[in-house]
Amino acid sequence: MKPSAINFDEKLASFSEHWSPKIVARMNDYHFKLVKFQGEFVWHKHADTDEVFIVLDGEMAIEFRDGPVVLRSGEMIVVPQGIEHRPRAKKECRALLVEPAGTINTGDAGGELTAQDDVWI
Amino acid sequence: MKPSAINFDEKLASFSEHWSPKIVARMNDYHFKLVKFQGEFVWHKHADTDEVFIVLDGEMAIEFRDGPVVLRSGEMIVVPQGIEHRPRAKKECRALLVEPAGTINTGDAGGELTAQDDVWI
Repeated sequence: MKPSAINFDEKLASFSEHWSPKIVARMNDYHFKLVKFQGEFVWHKHADTDEVFIVLDGEMAIEFRDGPVVLRSGEMIVVPQGIEHRPRAKKECRALLVEPAGTINTGDAGGELTAQDDVWI
Repeated sequence: MKPSAINFDEKLASFSEHWSPKIVARMNDYHFKLVKFQGEFVWHKHADTDEVFIVLDGEMAIEFRDGPVVLRSGEMIVVPQGIEHRPRAKKECRALLVEPAGTINTGDAGGELTAQDDVWI
């Protein structure tokens, strides 16, 4: 049976909370997750994997220990494995994340912003 | 050293040929590739992997043996491993592909539309 198209705007309309990635697709062992960013996240790293951010709407920055990288709609970045980073956004920013299934949003840091890693929308 | 933002429009402006994916990023063992589609591709499948298409601009369809799926800007699809498919686009359509490094665009079909799998832009 043929697969379905996944519409980002429709999926994004189904939730409002920030910093809580929702799975929309699986490719091999990887998840594609939609997320809404606003405010400042926690410094963290992912010991075992790179992580991709693709900005769909708005503007965000990812802080690294040697400075921030600004990302706008139509831009992506690969955060390398093991590198500390902190996403932030002044206004709500919508993004698509690509990372291995089971990747935890707060990485090694944990804490109250840790989201479930298995919520599909 | 911090990674750089990758701007899709800037990268897309650097080539014009159709059906020839260009690598813009690597995440673990996966490549992110920009491609311009126009016309009809060949029927093919990828025996070892799923494949993701994210449409950035324009409209395309992917034909499956049980019918086509239309994809517009802001939509994605996962073509499952081993499933025959044929992309097509009436007007130029720009997309981001995500697939394992070394994936050949024509899969098992080969032929004159086979592109190099290692061209970075």
